Amino acid sequence: MAGAEGRLSYGRYLQVDRLLACQEPESLKAGTPAHDEMLFIIVHQAYELWFKQILHELDRIQDDFAASPVADEHLGRITAGLGRIHEILKLLVGQLDVLETMTPAGFLEFRDLLTPASGFQSVQFRLIETRLGLRDESRLRIDEQSMRERLAPEDRARLDADHKPSLLAQLDTWLARTPFVALGDYSFRESYRAAVIAALRRDASSVGSDPSLPEAQRQADAAAIEKALARFQALFEPEAETATWRMSAPAIEAALFIALYRDMPVLQLPFRLLQSLMDIDESLTLWRLRHALMVERMIGVRPGTGGSSGSGYLRATAEKHRIFIDLFHLSTYLLAARDLPPLPEDLRRRMGFSYGAL
Amino acid sequence: MAGAEGRLSYGRYLQVDRLLACQEPESLKAGTPAHDEMLFIIVHQAYELWFKQILHELDRIQDDFAASPVADEHLGRITAGLGRIHEILKLLVGQLDVLETMTPAGFLEFRDLLTPASGFQSVQFRLIETRLGLRDESRLRIDEQSMRERLAPEDRARLDADHKPSLLAQLDTWLARTPFVALGDYSFRESYRAAVIAALRRDASSVGSDPSLPEAQRQADAAAIEKALARFQALFEPEAETATWRMSAPAIEAALFIALYRDMPVLQLPFRLLQSLMDIDESLTLWRLRHALMVERMIGVRPGTGGSSGSGYLRATAEKHRIFIDLFHLSTYLLAARDLPPLPEDLRRRMGFSYGAL
Amino acid sequence: MAGAEGRLSYGRYLQVDRLLACQEPESLKAGTPAHDEMLFIIVHQAYELWFKQILHELDRIQDDFAASPVADEHLGRITAGLGRIHEILKLLVGQLDVLETMTPAGFLEFRDLLTPASGFQSVQFRLIETRLGLRDESRLRIDEQSMRERLAPEDRARLDADHKPSLLAQLDTWLARTPFVALGDYSFRESYRAAVIAALRRDASSVGSDPSLPEAQRQADAAAIEKALARFQALFEPEAETATWRMSAPAIEAALFIALYRDMPVLQLPFRLLQSLMDIDESLTLWRLRHALMVERMIGVRPGTGGSSGSGYLRATAEKHRIFIDLFHLSTYLLAARDLPPLPEDLRRRMGFSYGAL
Amino acid sequence: MAGAEGRLSYGRYLQVDRLLACQEPESLKAGTPAHDEMLFIIVHQAYELWFKQILHELDRIQDDFAASPVADEHLGRITAGLGRIHEILKLLVGQLDVLETMTPAGFLEFRDLLTPASGFQSVQFRLIETRLGLRDESRLRIDEQSMRERLAPEDRARLDADHKPSLLAQLDTWLARTPFVALGDYSFRESYRAAVIAALRRDASSVGSDPSLPEAQRQADAAAIEKALARFQALFEPEAETATWRMSAPAIEAALFIALYRDMPVLQLPFRLLQSLMDIDESLTLWRLRHALMVERMIGVRPGTGGSSGSGYLRATAEKHRIFIDLFHLSTYLLAARDLPPLPEDLRRRMGFSYGAL
Repeated sequence: MAGAEGRLSYGRYLQVDRLLACQEPESLKAGTPAHDEMLFIIVHQAYELWFKQILHELDRIQDDFAASPVADEHLGRITAGLGRIHEILKLLVGQLDVLETMTPAGFLEFRDLLTPASGFQSVQFRLIETRLGLRDESRLRIDEQSMRERLAPEDRARLDADHKPSLLAQLDTWLARTPFVALGDYSFRESYRAAVIAALRRDASSVGSDPSLPEAQRQADAAAIEKALARFQALFEPEAETATWRMSAPAIEAALFIALYRDMPVLQLPFRLLQSLMDIDESLTLWRLRHALMVERMIGVRPGTGGSSGSGYLRATAEKHRIFIDLFHLSTYLLAARDLPPLPEDLRRRMGFSYGAL
Repeated sequence: MAGAEGRLSYGRYLQVDRLLACQEPESLKAGTPAHDEMLFIIVHQAYELWFKQILHELDRIQDDFAASPVADEHLGRITAGLGRIHEILKLLVGQLDVLETMTPAGFLEFRDLLTPASGFQSVQFRLIETRLGLRDESRLRIDEQSMRERLAPEDRARLDADHKPSLLAQLDTWLARTPFVALGDYSFRESYRAAVIAALRRDASSVGSDPSLPEAQRQADAAAIEKALARFQALFEPEAETATWRMSAPAIEAALFIALYRDMPVLQLPFRLLQSLMDIDESLTLWRLRHALMVERMIGVRPGTGGSSGSGYLRATAEKHRIFIDLFHLSTYLLAARDLPPLPEDLRRRMGFSYGAL
Repeated sequence: MAGAEGRLSYGRYLQVDRLLACQEPESLKAGTPAHDEMLFIIVHQAYELWFKQILHELDRIQDDFAASPVADEHLGRITAGLGRIHEILKLLVGQLDVLETMTPAGFLEFRDLLTPASGFQSVQFRLIETRLGLRDESRLRIDEQSMRERLAPEDRARLDADHKPSLLAQLDTWLARTPFVALGDYSFRESYRAAVIAALRRDASSVGSDPSLPEAQRQADAAAIEKALARFQALFEPEAETATWRMSAPAIEAALFIALYRDMPVLQLPFRLLQSLMDIDESLTLWRLRHALMVERMIGVRPGTGGSSGSGYLRATAEKHRIFIDLFHLSTYLLAARDLPPLPEDLRRRMGFSYGAL
Repeated sequence: MAGAEGRLSYGRYLQVDRLLACQEPESLKAGTPAHDEMLFIIVHQAYELWFKQILHELDRIQDDFAASPVADEHLGRITAGLGRIHEILKLLVGQLDVLETMTPAGFLEFRDLLTPASGFQSVQFRLIETRLGLRDESRLRIDEQSMRERLAPEDRARLDADHKPSLLAQLDTWLARTPFVALGDYSFRESYRAAVIAALRRDASSVGSDPSLPEAQRQADAAAIEKALARFQALFEPEAETATWRMSAPAIEAALFIALYRDMPVLQLPFRLLQSLMDIDESLTLWRLRHALMVERMIGVRPGTGGSSGSGYLRATAEKHRIFIDLFHLSTYLLAARDLPPLPEDLRRRMGFSYGAL
């Protein structure tokens, strides 16, 4: 891999010299060196390195998901790749523990020199969001501008250059093709519809007849159940209003099927895959919240250097920029095992391994 | 410590037998054993053990703080005690990682059996909140009921039996007595007021004259600065509207003084103490958010067993049940070191150690 | 679940009153209250609660593993159970972060009162070790006494009362039955033996002919490769000396097969299962090491309260009390994908799902 | 800070383009792209970034420590700097969680291409060790070569170019100058010598007369106490053999004084400083151990790419490359508060703040 004089070394392999030449504090240039600016630069560069890794994982995951059908032999590595992204996101939360060793006063020493640069401008992070499935029209606007409008032209161009479908869209397609949901005489929709409606009605009746509950609570509970019932109807009746779901009705239906019959061998890995997506959504959300708290601590209620409202904006993204929220909401529709319609024996057999039985 | 036959053993010391007899799953009693209920019980019991430890630490911290004046010799252990509470809260967040290994379907197997019990009823947690400084009137109401109204009479009685002042109130008293803030000719208020106003005005003028900024952003920035200036006025003019602060004007003033002159030997530990309070506020908030996400994952949009709106309620407490928020907002008013008025030489000397110079 | 007056409450469900009555500091009884003893008690009680949970998980995992054959439908929950144990072990490491907020001086205030009690006496922990697969004869001896000899009679009796086979033994049985390792004409042993020997020989020859390596290193590398080759022979020739492995030759062989062909659908979950076992071994080892460091910090080179050599003993257990070490050492024998013999097409088909193809 | 066309942006500030051009997988160059090599590169580059930050912190800490005397006003930031290094080291342990998502088989795909590069060659890491206080003669040798001998000439030159004293040496000097240890009539040495000897003798007598202890244990305990007593004599009698300590007798004495009288206002921050050094030593040790386990998992018992014995070497460094080990061993000599000789009243006064009493 290298000539006699050029045998591979750690330094050359990792390009350590180039890497360590990338930190040029503005405060140094300005002649007012601020000790903590190095930390600020390093933590953000570490973020960018990890963002690159997340995109690298998404590349393979999405290539695997682009196949039609998705190869069973790839499910293991897709799930492992999502697991890796989850571990990286946990690390990114940990990086904030380091950054918070900076005091607000330490930050102030160089903060003004950074205007109008802003973390908002991280193209890789915007790309991760987009690739996962955050749609432009769902993003919070700042000063009535969309995310793309606020980016510099060259950054916008980079974002626009990425034409991959989102993981959420691929997930939808993959889920919607799940076999077994309807096979021969068996229709999960029909079998489960009956069971869910029965269970929700049972809950409603139990709430209604419990004299120990305060009237107000009883009404609230009953209303919540009615609402759940209504949304459930919307799910199984495609012609109905389904606006509360982001995924298609068949995808939602399959995700439910997987969550309910997760012990079937053929569903075990798909179930973990869905869990990993929730892990990612959750850790990304926590990172946003943690980031918002850190910013509040550092700058109080000052506006952000890039003109956003600072911590308030970040906190709002944690609420609004959820991606796999449908998977969380699915739990609303789970039935306990005792209420679960059993699968037909023939179907069960097909969902397992046959081993040498060929 | 014990007779010949009764030498202390690990098991006797920790009362392991009694401890391990406290887990009685409802699903077992109901004849429908649900594997994951043990985890649910254990994680909550671990919470209660740690809550007890937090209260144990608060007891000593608050006793130390109750002295007038607070002894310098106790500052180290007060700060260490707050640091310990922070570590415990981080652990409590970690416990959710374990709890989340439970699937929503696993939870469903026993969830209905728990109605109407609810984590809301943890008296120790309510007490921790109250002790730290969360006032009843600041708490979110559920179905128009206050927290105390929703507790069972015996639990309410326990809460009512605790008459300690809150840590926030003690902190206020302690801060308000900080020497040096006004000593002889020196008035931090006067000296800093001038400097802050000058700096905010400078920011305002720089924003106003920057032609590269979009007009909308310029206006937003200018408005934000005006607002900060107005609140600042309120701070230093006691007769003004001060509703945005929870602590008294003298306490806020002293906290600012400590943050600004944190390198003075006499302020080094008070500075860490204030940081620890923010660490606590932050990790408590993160725990609330993490809890809300977990609940959303477990039950979707179902109501909580105790009748709350479930994850929505928890998420709202993360926003509203902040305690030391003033310390975060103080950062708004920090000046960079270069703008900071130097302390009079005589004052500096008094804020250090004299060693053998007696 | 309870009568009108006895509706389930949080406190009653979790038996909070009993739980919080289990902390009785010796220092309090002795009339010399030591603040930090409460922390010491609580952290150890939290350990015992989590140990109980680990045993609860092991119970189900081992029941599932006791079936013959192990049901495919249980593999998902076995793997999830192992994952939960791993998460718990990570939490237990985190608990040491809290315990380390105790200073050595704080510990000294009550340490002598605990003699001769010792963490060594935790029956649940000994049981976890035994259940996982640590054999009595592999345990470090203290003062020439075995672990069982050092336990009090009643504690020894509890340990003796558990007759379950170890997870390691069950794993061995399960692995040894892996289908596909030899099926029809195909013999993994034969196919892989050839490939591994070829690869190790290639490595040896490349080391031998690299003139840029120092002679000493070349010899060391060559010796290491020879040694690996010798052990490998031992693996595939059952009549040879196999003392370095703890698992049986067929189990080792199957574990290798799973690691190498992990992408085959039927092996994806078994592969994760093996990874989880390594995670558990690793986190248990880290907990031991972290514990040893903490003890060194707390008591320096003093002997432990129970008469062990203190931190030195703990550190040695981290080295010696490994359980799934074979799985780590297996990596020695992996071949890169390019050297891996492809599976016969017919075999590949049997290792996947057949879906509707019945 | 930049012209109209060159306003600072996030990308320009962080040199994101240069940073993200530093990852060039060898497997890509070799035409055999291995997916996981990107992770391997990124995690190591993130290490190097953080190593730079650690050195940046050490630079200031060591500059502050180079002053004579060390300014009281710098103690806060020295302690905070050490705390930051501790947080970074915890993060570095967390990075291994991410790296371990790589399977041994995934690593094998590109591992051979890296020979003979090795993590051993990280100049920054060697420098951190040296700067903290690891002496070349204490380092483990590989194939009878010292660390410097094994480095490439240019890397050795970089290491040699750093002439800063070690933090351990500076700590020694600073501790040895601690006032109050001997002041006027008061001699901590004399006062404490008497108290410690008394306490150790009391322990010895209690062990000797406890009939419930097995004879073997009694002898072991007694021997351990004798040994402690002997070492203690060595400490306070400078002419005696002190080989077991790395720090000078006056430094050890002062460190003890600080640990014992840590509540005196003038010692509160020095006490935290010493704790932070132990935190650093401990987290560095844990990182080494975790690293060793990971390597064992990845390559089994193969030798390292750089010719070391792989995981065995790393594990041995965790044992041998300790730096502030004296601080851990000090705990051996602590006395419980009840045995602690009280400080003379005059001394106590001098160790506090005088406030307005000038």
